[in-house]
Amino acid sequence: MALIVQKFGGTSVGTTERIKAVAGRIAAFKAAGHQLVVVVSAMSGETNRLIALAKEVQTEPDPREFDVVVSTGEQVAIGLLCMALLERGVKARSYTGGQVSILTDSSHTKARIRKIDEERMRADLAEGRLVVVAGFQGVDAEGNVTTLGRGGSDTTAVALAAALKADECQIYTDVDGVYTTDPRIVPEARRLKSVTFEEMLEMASLGSKILQIRSVEFAGKYKVRLRVLSSFQEQGEGTLITFEEDTKMEDALISGIAFNRDEAKITVMGVPDRPGIAYAILGPIGDANIDVDMIIQNAGVDGLTDLSFTVHRNEYQKALDVLNLKVKDHIKAADIRGDHKICKVSMVGVGMRTHAGIASQMFRTLAEEGINIQMISTSEIKISVVIDEKYMELAVRALHKAFGLDQPT
Amino acid sequence: MALIVQKFGGTSVGTTERIKAVAGRIAAFKAAGHQLVVVVSAMSGETNRLIALAKEVQTEPDPREFDVVVSTGEQVAIGLLCMALLERGVKARSYTGGQVSILTDSSHTKARIRKIDEERMRADLAEGRLVVVAGFQGVDAEGNVTTLGRGGSDTTAVALAAALKADECQIYTDVDGVYTTDPRIVPEARRLKSVTFEEMLEMASLGSKILQIRSVEFAGKYKVRLRVLSSFQEQGEGTLITFEEDTKMEDALISGIAFNRDEAKITVMGVPDRPGIAYAILGPIGDANIDVDMIIQNAGVDGLTDLSFTVHRNEYQKALDVLNLKVKDHIKAADIRGDHKICKVSMVGVGMRTHAGIASQMFRTLAEEGINIQMISTSEIKISVVIDEKYMELAVRALHKAFGLDQPT
Repeated sequence: MALIVQKFGGTSVGTTERIKAVAGRIAAFKAAGHQLVVVVSAMSGETNRLIALAKEVQTEPDPREFDVVVSTGEQVAIGLLCMALLERGVKARSYTGGQVSILTDSSHTKARIRKIDEERMRADLAEGRLVVVAGFQGVDAEGNVTTLGRGGSDTTAVALAAALKADECQIYTDVDGVYTTDPRIVPEARRLKSVTFEEMLEMASLGSKILQIRSVEFAGKYKVRLRVLSSFQEQGEGTLITFEEDTKMEDALISGIAFNRDEAKITVMGVPDRPGIAYAILGPIGDANIDVDMIIQNAGVDGLTDLSFTVHRNEYQKALDVLNLKVKDHIKAADIRGDHKICKVSMVGVGMRTHAGIASQMFRTLAEEGINIQMISTSEIKISVVIDEKYMELAVRALHKAFGLDQPT
Repeated sequence: MALIVQKFGGTSVGTTERIKAVAGRIAAFKAAGHQLVVVVSAMSGETNRLIALAKEVQTEPDPREFDVVVSTGEQVAIGLLCMALLERGVKARSYTGGQVSILTDSSHTKARIRKIDEERMRADLAEGRLVVVAGFQGVDAEGNVTTLGRGGSDTTAVALAAALKADECQIYTDVDGVYTTDPRIVPEARRLKSVTFEEMLEMASLGSKILQIRSVEFAGKYKVRLRVLSSFQEQGEGTLITFEEDTKMEDALISGIAFNRDEAKITVMGVPDRPGIAYAILGPIGDANIDVDMIIQNAGVDGLTDLSFTVHRNEYQKALDVLNLKVKDHIKAADIRGDHKICKVSMVGVGMRTHAGIASQMFRTLAEEGINIQMISTSEIKISVVIDEKYMELAVRALHKAFGLDQPT
């Protein structure tokens, strides 16, 4: 008998019919003899409806009251799911974040979990009861309702699994697992049986938006066995996210290829190559609340250098304005150039750590396709390149094939 | 500086525009220097939407989970109202029933309030903050969400006023006070400046559905000064509900005339006039969960008697079926007759206690209009008659005039 935490998202409980279907799946798991704690999100659309109501009343809703309002979406979902389970004869009981209790800090709308009191859940499980917990919400030390931010239900599930020392945390999503890359671009993409946390973190932040990053970090920190599965397919083992590298096959150098066309590139040209110049450029960008992703600075020639960085495409113009108004003359830059028709392609894999030659094989593959590399950035388990966005699909397909990701391991 | 509890119903907060308007009224009160605790119901229609969702999932929703779901309506309303107040610069904070805390028993869907911890509210009031509390809900000793039943927000308001020893509890409704009778039937009907609790109880149970009966009982028990006012009129002092009879004018014998056309009459004829016969008839009716209102039994003639009673019109056929199947032969009744085209007209007034002749004047007035009285029932401060429903308006108008209720006191 295993103790499993399962999380179902808003789409899975989007209608009362779907809630009944989810209850059927959960009931089958329970019948197989498992102890279950189920985390649910609000019915799809409900959180947006509540946010719209709040914004009708207050343009920038008060964070404390905002949490009071939006947390009701999950509360409705847990009650309805329990009713559907009870209707099937499955003993179940619902808990809000406050009832269970998921203690957080007081950062309304983006609270962090501090402590979970698992006693009440344990008592229910011991009595053969299934526990249904509202995702996305908690309560602070003063009893105020808090929320964890968008996608916070994943974090709730992982945190509950950690607190209960569950055997596995299963996240049910729209997809049936983590793929070597997006199957819409590369039909030969394969579902991975397992990825490491580090790989998952790189994949998630690179645009494989399957799991909220924070929940993956949380799982890694507390060594929670995490699995991504499809809400809509009855069969399938999904993808297991592991925290032990050595459980991976020796020859799987690369796990997946991620890509992102939401970025834009900016280059500040001909700036004096002296200490503090990067700060002089990126300080004002940070002050304007613009997040920077990749940053490249080449070795200088004749005391001058170029500094390039990427920002989200939505903030491209804002970043250019900041540079032109506040930075350019100040640091005596020769020119400021930008390009928003770029994309980032990244190869991710823990095998890179111990295998040389991955980068050179990547660059050769791209060169053979005639694709020019504009920027390069590397980490221990990732190599990212910025290229012209029109070559994105071509690059992803070529790399996928060159690294044998289309071959079963 | 007075401490006032104000309650706004679902219609008053039915849209975000109305929520903003209510915030404006509350802000004006606060600006006048009062300490305020505001109780709100769910936005109109919301509770019904949630109930419909629950019934889609489970035909007879589990009471505990039902409360989890429906209590969210009020939670949304308190958050939105606080946002509207904060937007106006009024310091405000919302509390759910569990947060404040309104401790109830564990009778889900119809819980009774046991204890209110007013410390948190007092702290907010002391800091110049306005307190907004969710109506209709509480929490039991185990931390489960409970609800007080339909109209429970009135009870919440009165209970908070009692706990805080507030100077007044103001219930804002669709009407601007309690009238001598329904102005739609008698245009000359007048708003009463005050009624006693006992009168209000009789009026409420007789169909003047302004306040939930339980809230009036509660106010009487804890001597809460209760006032009914209009949500939509800026001016007006409404109707004060008092618990001291002597504050009433000596000559106001009758306060109002209530009526009800939701009843049906059933007569069991020619039954043996012996002990236990009323139980033999009404026991099975009660067992079938049918509520009985008036019950009349005449003195018997030749060892036989007739017993009449009234039930809600929706349960008329069910009651007839019970009598024909389970009672008639058993007690050897001669016949069972019914009439669902009846109505009940009641005169209510604490003055009746000390003034004779009210009943005879009522009967004379009806006789002069040619209206036959089918049943009579009296209490200390009420006389009710059952008449043919086609005479209802005529009877109410004639009595209203005969007792001078159209004259200003």
